[in-house]
Amino acid sequence: MSLRSVDTDFITALSAHLPQDTLRPVEPRYLEEPRARIEGIGGILALPKTTQEVATILKACHAAHVPVVPYGGGTGLVGGQVMPRGGAEPLILSLERMARIRKVDAASAVMVAEAGAILADVQAAAEAAERLFPLSLAAQGSARIGGNLATNAGGLNVLRYGNARDLCLGLEAVLPDGTLWNGLSELRKDNTGYDLKNLLIGAEGTLGVITAASLKLFPRPAAYETAFLVVPDPEAAVALLSLARGQFGEQISAFELMQQQSWNFLAHAFPEMRQPFAEAPAWCVLIELGLSQQGAPGEAIEALFVNALEAGLVQDGAVATSEQQRQQFWGLRESVPLANRKIGAISSHDISVPIARIGAFVAEARAALAKVSDLRINCFGHLGDGNLHFNLFPAEGKKRSDYKDMQDDLKRIVHDLVAAHNGAFSAEHGVGRLKTSDLLRYGDPGKLAMMRAVKAALDPHGIMNPGVIFAEG
Amino acid sequence: MSLRSVDTDFITALSAHLPQDTLRPVEPRYLEEPRARIEGIGGILALPKTTQEVATILKACHAAHVPVVPYGGGTGLVGGQVMPRGGAEPLILSLERMARIRKVDAASAVMVAEAGAILADVQAAAEAAERLFPLSLAAQGSARIGGNLATNAGGLNVLRYGNARDLCLGLEAVLPDGTLWNGLSELRKDNTGYDLKNLLIGAEGTLGVITAASLKLFPRPAAYETAFLVVPDPEAAVALLSLARGQFGEQISAFELMQQQSWNFLAHAFPEMRQPFAEAPAWCVLIELGLSQQGAPGEAIEALFVNALEAGLVQDGAVATSEQQRQQFWGLRESVPLANRKIGAISSHDISVPIARIGAFVAEARAALAKVSDLRINCFGHLGDGNLHFNLFPAEGKKRSDYKDMQDDLKRIVHDLVAAHNGAFSAEHGVGRLKTSDLLRYGDPGKLAMMRAVKAALDPHGIMNPGVIFAEG
Repeated sequence: MSLRSVDTDFITALSAHLPQDTLRPVEPRYLEEPRARIEGIGGILALPKTTQEVATILKACHAAHVPVVPYGGGTGLVGGQVMPRGGAEPLILSLERMARIRKVDAASAVMVAEAGAILADVQAAAEAAERLFPLSLAAQGSARIGGNLATNAGGLNVLRYGNARDLCLGLEAVLPDGTLWNGLSELRKDNTGYDLKNLLIGAEGTLGVITAASLKLFPRPAAYETAFLVVPDPEAAVALLSLARGQFGEQISAFELMQQQSWNFLAHAFPEMRQPFAEAPAWCVLIELGLSQQGAPGEAIEALFVNALEAGLVQDGAVATSEQQRQQFWGLRESVPLANRKIGAISSHDISVPIARIGAFVAEARAALAKVSDLRINCFGHLGDGNLHFNLFPAEGKKRSDYKDMQDDLKRIVHDLVAAHNGAFSAEHGVGRLKTSDLLRYGDPGKLAMMRAVKAALDPHGIMNPGVIFAEG
Repeated sequence: MSLRSVDTDFITALSAHLPQDTLRPVEPRYLEEPRARIEGIGGILALPKTTQEVATILKACHAAHVPVVPYGGGTGLVGGQVMPRGGAEPLILSLERMARIRKVDAASAVMVAEAGAILADVQAAAEAAERLFPLSLAAQGSARIGGNLATNAGGLNVLRYGNARDLCLGLEAVLPDGTLWNGLSELRKDNTGYDLKNLLIGAEGTLGVITAASLKLFPRPAAYETAFLVVPDPEAAVALLSLARGQFGEQISAFELMQQQSWNFLAHAFPEMRQPFAEAPAWCVLIELGLSQQGAPGEAIEALFVNALEAGLVQDGAVATSEQQRQQFWGLRESVPLANRKIGAISSHDISVPIARIGAFVAEARAALAKVSDLRINCFGHLGDGNLHFNLFPAEGKKRSDYKDMQDDLKRIVHDLVAAHNGAFSAEHGVGRLKTSDLLRYGDPGKLAMMRAVKAALDPHGIMNPGVIFAEG
């Protein structure tokens, strides 16, 4: 695939078809990503205000074989939003000026938002209509819904409400050659042809650019009950989830695992944050019930606690007694990634395994890593979905750079074990540019063949986010 | 695309690579479909017992450009399972000998079933493990799970649990060139590349053959409460659903609309069935709550009834007072399509509109049809999903054939109105061979372009179910 860098001729020709301030020099912030693993390049920044302008831009890039990097909030963790030096200089296409909530229909429980809408604003618009848009993640103050959909974001409420793809009823998108697809359906059922919505969702900008989405809204639970519950080990946490499900059905909104190391890192990074336990527990879960009927405050979770205590599944607990305390509990959970960043990970793994295998995986991974290194592990995350963030850190007194030579081996140990347990090397972050070799190593050959065929069919010149998902560009 | 009929040379060559009884003459039952709109042709019947045999068969058909009609339970309502005279004679590929439940894992709430497993057997296997597989439809005694997935079947519990695609975690499939894709994931979260699962689901056998699926299981509700509630009109039914949602959240398992005509047809076709109302109500809903906690029998639905009565949304009701009566209520609802078949529809429409538009759509469609004809309408179905079966019947004393010349116009009137309300001309039955012209008329051009590109990429010789979805073959 021979791609061409953005050059003056291209910019001059394209700008003739766009409003004056649409094309701009690339500011440095578009070339950074949160974990600072990749430094990006960009020949020009495009800030379209309409879907038609996006179409004009893609059509020109397609004709000129100019690569395009679609840009949402820039919060992705696998480098899908930055193109490293070495190839043709891309046009960076940011949707930030297409951030309108086009409509909120509380009665039909549907919202239509443009791709550049910030996730927190989408949540707030739903809230204003007394509905819930349940996608919730640490970066929600800057992540944009188009990026959330392009990467099929997960987050805290997947257990109950599903991933980003499950929250989307339809898309408006521009295909790589500039063709507009108006698929902004608001229907719950539509069997009129291939499911293109789910093909674009999770394609990480390699098959087209999402410009707007119709999103599912939900009734807001009548009451929340939230608690940290101390469990003896991850197996007990899985059993506790099963017990809770028997008691509350779909009303469990979140079920998050935290490890002792999470509390230690929080204490180090945010000493001002109050922790609920005098001594950091080896393992605990943060459970949240979103109840459809309001009972006495804390009643439901206390009933669960009693049953779980009897079954030997919990040892201690802290129930949030006010909305303020609930927010504080969530603040602790959501600050774990920030604390990790302050410590500085050797290697970060966003993995999933079948939920029944979580206990075995954690034990085996710890043992295998202990054999080769003195590193520290922070294992936490969305246990209810079988999704753990299994991140490796330097031993106390050591630096990331001390582990530089082992990085690949450590990753290999974790991901091979994940594969042995029929898991995924990326549960919610995607493949991006950082995990393309994992996809080659662990991906089913039939799947890879099918993916390449689809990519070649929809983006024959390979202009869309080259290097993302497919290592070969 | 020039396809070749199955001939003796092809059969001889292929049979050398398959166990002896795999290829057989085509029995007449494989050439029929429930509504008798299409009479099929078939050159040979293949009954593979393994995924590898399916791969061998597709590889040979791909090489020889022989068309393939994948065959599940034969219950589809849009002719996707039969190829009409006129083109090359296909190989009919029935999955009926691949009907094994490979595994049921109650703890992880996952089952793996082969494509030929009958839906009722899949439900029973879940039940035996004290779990629920919620896909439920009238044809479940003969429909097979592979066909349910290929057509993204809907049915009675979509409101709560989603369509077939929402119940599937992963697929094993054979691609048109014989490549095997092992995608039998049991993960709730997996962001490692394109969503091929959802591309094959709903593709109606045009992109490959599903050979097995991993399926989501759910906790069985602790108690069901079921009732027919009489409503003044469809708008009130929509408002009643909203009220019920506020009261019971996700615990509403089904919410079905029935019209006076449904009761009249039932009385005519099944006079022995006991009806719950002395006089058939103009409109009523069948609501079922699947409660996560057992209360006093009927308590929840009676509480809803009291609130709804106060709000003027219901006028009368009949609550099932035993499991036997619950089954009887469902028997009535599920017999409506059979009653319709005995009357003989002029035209059947499986449509969806945004749920807030249901009242307007029904009123406008009745008015528009009354202007041109004296026909009878039976409008019933999955109101909670915005999905109605809006079927047209001869006036009393007239025959289907009396309306032969108007059939296309009548369909056009209904589907144009559906499109005007941003609806879909096929909500759950698919496109098949009977609705290809609707897809061309109502499909977004960008969507059609994308679909054709994907089809050409994955099935370059066009052997898979030609004439289905794409009219052009």
